[in-house]
Amino acid sequence: MLIIMKLNSPRSEIEQVKEKITNLGYIPHEIPGEARMAIGITGNRGKIDPEIFLNMPGVLEAIPVTKPYKLANKDFKPGSTIVNVGSEQIGTKELTVIAGPCSVESRDQIVEIASSLKNMGIKFLRGGAYKPRTSPYAFQGLKEQALQYLKDAREATGIKIVTEVKDTETLPLVAECADILQVGARNMQNYSLLEAIGAQRKPVLLKRGLSATIEEWLMAAEYILNGGNNNVILCERGIRTFETATRNTLDLNAVPIVKKLSHLPIIVDPSHGIGLWEGVIPMSLAAIAAGADGVIVEVHQDPANALSDGYQSLKPSKMKILLERLQLLAPIMERTLNLNK
Amino acid sequence: MLIIMKLNSPRSEIEQVKEKITNLGYIPHEIPGEARMAIGITGNRGKIDPEIFLNMPGVLEAIPVTKPYKLANKDFKPGSTIVNVGSEQIGTKELTVIAGPCSVESRDQIVEIASSLKNMGIKFLRGGAYKPRTSPYAFQGLKEQALQYLKDAREATGIKIVTEVKDTETLPLVAECADILQVGARNMQNYSLLEAIGAQRKPVLLKRGLSATIEEWLMAAEYILNGGNNNVILCERGIRTFETATRNTLDLNAVPIVKKLSHLPIIVDPSHGIGLWEGVIPMSLAAIAAGADGVIVEVHQDPANALSDGYQSLKPSKMKILLERLQLLAPIMERTLNLNK
Amino acid sequence: MLIIMKLNSPRSEIEQVKEKITNLGYIPHEIPGEARMAIGITGNRGKIDPEIFLNMPGVLEAIPVTKPYKLANKDFKPGSTIVNVGSEQIGTKELTVIAGPCSVESRDQIVEIASSLKNMGIKFLRGGAYKPRTSPYAFQGLKEQALQYLKDAREATGIKIVTEVKDTETLPLVAECADILQVGARNMQNYSLLEAIGAQRKPVLLKRGLSATIEEWLMAAEYILNGGNNNVILCERGIRTFETATRNTLDLNAVPIVKKLSHLPIIVDPSHGIGLWEGVIPMSLAAIAAGADGVIVEVHQDPANALSDGYQSLKPSKMKILLERLQLLAPIMERTLNLNK
Amino acid sequence: MLIIMKLNSPRSEIEQVKEKITNLGYIPHEIPGEARMAIGITGNRGKIDPEIFLNMPGVLEAIPVTKPYKLANKDFKPGSTIVNVGSEQIGTKELTVIAGPCSVESRDQIVEIASSLKNMGIKFLRGGAYKPRTSPYAFQGLKEQALQYLKDAREATGIKIVTEVKDTETLPLVAECADILQVGARNMQNYSLLEAIGAQRKPVLLKRGLSATIEEWLMAAEYILNGGNNNVILCERGIRTFETATRNTLDLNAVPIVKKLSHLPIIVDPSHGIGLWEGVIPMSLAAIAAGADGVIVEVHQDPANALSDGYQSLKPSKMKILLERLQLLAPIMERTLNLNK
Repeated sequence: MLIIMKLNSPRSEIEQVKEKITNLGYIPHEIPGEARMAIGITGNRGKIDPEIFLNMPGVLEAIPVTKPYKLANKDFKPGSTIVNVGSEQIGTKELTVIAGPCSVESRDQIVEIASSLKNMGIKFLRGGAYKPRTSPYAFQGLKEQALQYLKDAREATGIKIVTEVKDTETLPLVAECADILQVGARNMQNYSLLEAIGAQRKPVLLKRGLSATIEEWLMAAEYILNGGNNNVILCERGIRTFETATRNTLDLNAVPIVKKLSHLPIIVDPSHGIGLWEGVIPMSLAAIAAGADGVIVEVHQDPANALSDGYQSLKPSKMKILLERLQLLAPIMERTLNLNK
Repeated sequence: MLIIMKLNSPRSEIEQVKEKITNLGYIPHEIPGEARMAIGITGNRGKIDPEIFLNMPGVLEAIPVTKPYKLANKDFKPGSTIVNVGSEQIGTKELTVIAGPCSVESRDQIVEIASSLKNMGIKFLRGGAYKPRTSPYAFQGLKEQALQYLKDAREATGIKIVTEVKDTETLPLVAECADILQVGARNMQNYSLLEAIGAQRKPVLLKRGLSATIEEWLMAAEYILNGGNNNVILCERGIRTFETATRNTLDLNAVPIVKKLSHLPIIVDPSHGIGLWEGVIPMSLAAIAAGADGVIVEVHQDPANALSDGYQSLKPSKMKILLERLQLLAPIMERTLNLNK
Repeated sequence: MLIIMKLNSPRSEIEQVKEKITNLGYIPHEIPGEARMAIGITGNRGKIDPEIFLNMPGVLEAIPVTKPYKLANKDFKPGSTIVNVGSEQIGTKELTVIAGPCSVESRDQIVEIASSLKNMGIKFLRGGAYKPRTSPYAFQGLKEQALQYLKDAREATGIKIVTEVKDTETLPLVAECADILQVGARNMQNYSLLEAIGAQRKPVLLKRGLSATIEEWLMAAEYILNGGNNNVILCERGIRTFETATRNTLDLNAVPIVKKLSHLPIIVDPSHGIGLWEGVIPMSLAAIAAGADGVIVEVHQDPANALSDGYQSLKPSKMKILLERLQLLAPIMERTLNLNK
Repeated sequence: MLIIMKLNSPRSEIEQVKEKITNLGYIPHEIPGEARMAIGITGNRGKIDPEIFLNMPGVLEAIPVTKPYKLANKDFKPGSTIVNVGSEQIGTKELTVIAGPCSVESRDQIVEIASSLKNMGIKFLRGGAYKPRTSPYAFQGLKEQALQYLKDAREATGIKIVTEVKDTETLPLVAECADILQVGARNMQNYSLLEAIGAQRKPVLLKRGLSATIEEWLMAAEYILNGGNNNVILCERGIRTFETATRNTLDLNAVPIVKKLSHLPIIVDPSHGIGLWEGVIPMSLAAIAAGADGVIVEVHQDPANALSDGYQSLKPSKMKILLERLQLLAPIMERTLNLNK
């Protein structure tokens, strides 16, 4: 249920509505608009009778929201969410480019690639410290040590850090290092983790699960938003289908659909989405042409010897070409890509 | 198996190789290149020993082709296939735009939309005369009458006709009308139809089956090519996945993958690929950004009253906006979009 | 819309209702029940007002049928359809077992396996004469010659013939040989073929398409029923999913769902459904335990040298074991399996 | 790599081989067989040279294991794993039946259904205390209170408790109550949770992920086995496909495939697998006929008013019918179902 207040309704009326909601056992969420206040209600199971609110002073409308997600719903917040990451913003006209290796492999590796990317004008470095792997025998990441190396890379270059958090135990440690926390596809429905992330304020890059519908993905975002953390960035990274020529099927349909349904920014991971480095440049361009707010791309100095995901990683020289193409594309999409370093 | 001849090998040596292939019970296919001739072998089951050819005069190499498709394989014909449709070409730098209604509904409807599209500079009209429908009770198209209306539309405007052929019985009739024959997704593995289409020379737009892998799709193309019809244009139109927010999942990964594996042109159908008109413009742009050679878009004067697919059809005014966006995008992709009318 | 007549309503009242339906431009279908007549209406798009019929003499009820299939709907014909194939019946308490090789490979091969199966008490032989194959270079079947061999096998043993029809051109030839026509998965939405099969009276085994929903499958059956051929047997043979350990994912859920939605018999093809011979016995038992009316199993004298599908074919000795297991299982399922030869 | 020792090789030789493995930086696992000892090696990335072991005293063979899972591999332990749960065993000839409601809703509800099930001879009660839900606004379970109610139900009836653990935080609490820990489909690749479960010794019911291949599922089991907890029971509960007539597609193919690849017991959840109560009895029978070691079935006193999953829950009276059918089926499958109470 969404309560729309009249133009310039005084604070006292807003507070009365919120009190009523609280008394009913639900949770009110203020959603300030340019001209008027709206109040979202969550915590209800089943329908709420709009009549309860309609004759309260200051109430214009009471709109039942039929989608199961509420806080993530465009109806709840008609504009677009902008996520602030220090001095940078995600979800504006400016395209976001996040780049870096799958895994942090050594201090030298990560500092070197960070400066190489920073020199191209890239503002966000990705790099995994804790790696969820299908096999217990595969490289699981350098863990705490990697977090230190990521900090070193930031200190050396000023680049911002995007790194995955894989459980609630290591969340404090990872959150202390990361500028943006990444939730991996396999954890998209790890609700305990989502709740813990919702309870803190670091921005989150929420990857879509391998077999998650768009609605389930928005419901996962809802868990974080419901905890009070509004800094959610969605990330389409490919879904699982019958096709075996590619690692996943990048679902770019999700970009216009998410833009229609939600106010949250959405970026695209073409590296996992196609799983072959030759496809990363075309699919990055396609993502932006579909309306995405940015891309996250795997880049490695020496893909042939990467500890993970080398076959889908670009060399820095190819990343440079991608940036040049994106700078040409941005104005066509009424976007900017500011690479002044 | 692919036999590569030496530079400037004389005709007599080429003929000797072809004769040898024929004597072995296989079929030779000449594949002329800029500098040298190649000869493809089909009709073999299992491997052929390369030694058989290696010491024949004029033979440089004998390359086993491991992919199950041969004539559709990029190794067979390293350049790109250009399909000639009268004065127009598909598969060059010039982007192809095909537009029109799902079904031909009346003479007036199709002539009107044809002139409207022609006035925008569009050179190909789509419109179904025979409609394969999930339900036997749904509108099945105006059939022969529709073919006449399509001819009328061509006569009135000069626009070229793309229309679906749904069985071998009506192939002669449809081929007599169409400039490009369309094979629908449900018929992609109708091998009798593919063989019949291979046996004639009209260009073909071969849609990908709902659950066809890229390899199976190229194998379907192989049936047509093997019949001697080289005028095959592939069309990605979305695959079936678990996602229900969209009619299909448009698999744009297929574009760079097809470009890597095959020499055939590929165009994209965003209307079926997403199944919602609001998504057609972004997904058309995404298709071209991914490297597609063109798009095929459903356009209807009055989508709300269309006999089929109205919810995924653009109005002519929206189609005009799409063209403007495509003209901006084309040069970024090193393409052209020539709309001089 | 389904019109239910009162108990023992006279022929004249039934004819009046049928005339009314015809005058409205729709098609009436008599559905005689044990106690009363029902009349199905097809040919309508959109809803029909029940009021039109309710005050006609003899009319008890007018039930809108919301499922898009009507003739295949259980509401249309509450009992179960029994398909007569000469002296045999499919869809009764007696389980149906169809067995034989993927392809007819030679006269000797098919006559030998037919007598071997007949000696076990099996009454239906499968064997492909026309083989739709993914590759144009793969074995396409012995075609007309194979039809003659199948007739020879029937003459020699009395076994009934189940063989695939792949296009309308060869339908008369195949129908002249077959006791049951098989429609393959790739042709499930070849509507021209379905219409041609609906226009004749040979029983049909309609395989489910690789990515067909149960509803689409029933709609395909509807095409045949709507032509006037009521002898439709459904065949679940596995659907396409992401799982690669098996050739297909045998969807046994389809058995109770089809039994709930439709009156048509359903049999299961475990050979294609799992694609590994070791899995054929357990999945055959599972199919019957789920409520299927029978199984169709690939059996070959020498699977290692079969021209197609050897890896999923049972040897005759294993088929015998399967029959023994099925005979034990049948009474548990309130079924019979009569193998007196 | 799997080292097979000679018949009756003395302990000293076994220890030498284990020491060698440890010195190479890998981990040895003793796998005692009836006649001889085998030693599995894990912890290696890439191949190990078999020569290293072949001329050590007592070594018969050194077999490279190519599957990515090792401890879960049938080659590692050729017999079948039997999981002991107090006085009960899972994975023997005796079928396992687990039944109960989706969620624990109250003390009365769970104690009542427990005695009802116990009276039928059922030995395992399922019931969710912590419920992972797609929506943050849905009923999340009674949590700690529910654990107490489950203990009460056990105390009152002697039935054993199967309940889901959803995160590492609550693992100690849940493990203190449960006789078998359940890992839900959405947590199948929550590696931190799998590791924590591997580090303790309570038996685990590991549900297959919605889009997990069989190989990925066995890799998830590998995480637990690698921690030293061998008490893993696999549970097929349906995968996500395009079919919408059922909640999931129950993949019974997985039963014979798992039996071929692994020594772990496998049981089937038909309630989630089809998602409609009418389908639960047929699919339970099908699961056992396919070779499963048991079933886990949702049963509720009053499905229409259940707080979750009512539409797929059996009433106790229907559960009784299922048990009667299973008792008839068991001997056909060379199984027993002992319901003496």
